[in-house]
Amino acid sequence: MARFVDVRTMVEWAASRGPEDILVGLIAYLEEDFRDWPGFDKTPRVASHTSFGVIELMPTSTSETYAFKYVNGHPSNPARGYQTVTAFGMLADVHNGYPTFLAEMTLLTAFRTAATSAMAAKLLARPDSRTMAMIGCGSQAEFQALAFRAAGGVTGFRVWDTDPAAMAKLERNLAPYGITVVQAASAADCVAGADIITTCTADKAYATILTAGLVGPGVHVNAIGGDCPGKTELDPAILTKADVFVEFPPQTRIEGEIQQMPDDFPVTELWQVLTGEAPGRTSPEQITVFDSVGFAVEDYSALRFVRDAVEGTEFGEEIDLIAAPADPKDLFGLIAAAVPARA
Amino acid sequence: MARFVDVRTMVEWAASRGPEDILVGLIAYLEEDFRDWPGFDKTPRVASHTSFGVIELMPTSTSETYAFKYVNGHPSNPARGYQTVTAFGMLADVHNGYPTFLAEMTLLTAFRTAATSAMAAKLLARPDSRTMAMIGCGSQAEFQALAFRAAGGVTGFRVWDTDPAAMAKLERNLAPYGITVVQAASAADCVAGADIITTCTADKAYATILTAGLVGPGVHVNAIGGDCPGKTELDPAILTKADVFVEFPPQTRIEGEIQQMPDDFPVTELWQVLTGEAPGRTSPEQITVFDSVGFAVEDYSALRFVRDAVEGTEFGEEIDLIAAPADPKDLFGLIAAAVPARA
Repeated sequence: MARFVDVRTMVEWAASRGPEDILVGLIAYLEEDFRDWPGFDKTPRVASHTSFGVIELMPTSTSETYAFKYVNGHPSNPARGYQTVTAFGMLADVHNGYPTFLAEMTLLTAFRTAATSAMAAKLLARPDSRTMAMIGCGSQAEFQALAFRAAGGVTGFRVWDTDPAAMAKLERNLAPYGITVVQAASAADCVAGADIITTCTADKAYATILTAGLVGPGVHVNAIGGDCPGKTELDPAILTKADVFVEFPPQTRIEGEIQQMPDDFPVTELWQVLTGEAPGRTSPEQITVFDSVGFAVEDYSALRFVRDAVEGTEFGEEIDLIAAPADPKDLFGLIAAAVPARA
Repeated sequence: MARFVDVRTMVEWAASRGPEDILVGLIAYLEEDFRDWPGFDKTPRVASHTSFGVIELMPTSTSETYAFKYVNGHPSNPARGYQTVTAFGMLADVHNGYPTFLAEMTLLTAFRTAATSAMAAKLLARPDSRTMAMIGCGSQAEFQALAFRAAGGVTGFRVWDTDPAAMAKLERNLAPYGITVVQAASAADCVAGADIITTCTADKAYATILTAGLVGPGVHVNAIGGDCPGKTELDPAILTKADVFVEFPPQTRIEGEIQQMPDDFPVTELWQVLTGEAPGRTSPEQITVFDSVGFAVEDYSALRFVRDAVEGTEFGEEIDLIAAPADPKDLFGLIAAAVPARA
């Protein structure tokens, strides 16, 4: 039997524990796994692209535990009443290959993406960063705001979205957490004076959400939305004048903002900043960019975190996913045992 | 909501419908999908190898439906009381990326592997084939026997396994279906006079289960067990004197018997035999080999078959896998709705 956390259970667990506490706990798991980065079996995700969107499988493994996530990305989904991104994932025991834990990951991916952004900002943003501009107020926005406040000490939020209802939704959702957001009049208005700029829009296009003139010295850019081939948000000129940090270069060069740059465009791997093998921010004037596309190790961390958190609680149920005949060579016997005796 | 068929349900459905009827139905679905082979998005499976075994993801897609399977292969599992192969799989709607159907596939993979073998034998074995030698009497053996009788008219079965208990298990399980198996004294004794030879052993090694001298003119070899890098069953001399048929060459050249041969070793794709674009068996003396490794399209067929078969029946349950807020941009609102109101 494997433990399964469905959507309702994930929602109830998240509400019960509180999203900020989850984000803080998840950042600790992410930091632990990023420090162990060389210990993971890593491969770029396997994507199936259609004109509607993309469906991806994201596997990774340590010598003990295998993880994968199924995730889609369909930018036209919200207009049709569906989530842009839905996901679920699984952990398995490497020793025998048996699944041990399954969970919905639509909600969990939102948590892990925000926690990863906040982990990166702790390393890359100026320590005195207090204000964040958020361009794009979709599903990911609340999670980003809570993660940056909880982990990064950000207290001021200026937001912009071409959809006023999305801005209003973000303001409404964050108010109960004591966060007051300022609705900007444009992207330029939004980023003015911000210490950190988060771009998180959904269009599948080479878009320029942020031009180079809007990014001043000392800013950290948390670039979330450019996460598949043909989908970017940043003016390439920003990348040229910044230091760019990535998760897993073979994947980011295909999917991230740096798909706009030459193959040898210099980047630093985030895990090396965590372990001290590479510098993060080196001066207050430096512009840093976290070119986030989401990597399988982060899903591993998220699944591991929830698995540990719900163990021994009422959250989750056992599901019957592994056929286990008493004689392992007698798989057919399972059917025979269920068939009425023949004459 | 997505429909989920767990192990118990799959077993009960299989017992209720009968394994032979399932195999016949599945062969028809496989033939339909193999005829549409160019319409599938195909990629070699993504494997994570360890010293214990392998864990794989096998995705494929049409323009309408995406499928993937999670499957492990751990040759040392039976000695520790576990199944060598366990699996589960999923179908999703390409238009919005939402999962629609999930099922255990340990049992279902056994059905689809046998059905694929029988489909190939219908094209490649001599039409007057009546006897099959089976080397390896593990989990796959009963399914192979029933598939070849149901689809190929095979009525005589000679079996061999280094484990006498496995031979006895096969004989016991097939007796209720009116199949009498003859237990051989060795691999050579087993294959003597057989029209079809099925090799299905589990060791992860370059093994020689079958030497060239044992394979006479007119024989069809159904080679199942050589299905990952470093795992083969056939003497390469058999491949040299035979015509070799495969599922998806980029995967089979890595995983199949032909991993022992040069990269340009000539093979015929099975789907082309089905559509008439390539010849199958051309003479009674020809030796044919189906170098089977298992391909994602077969899992697609199997999932599609079960999905259609259980629709409107009591087999299967709805599971809550997709977070679906009323406002698709308001994922966070799901948590907010479950949190007690704050002061």
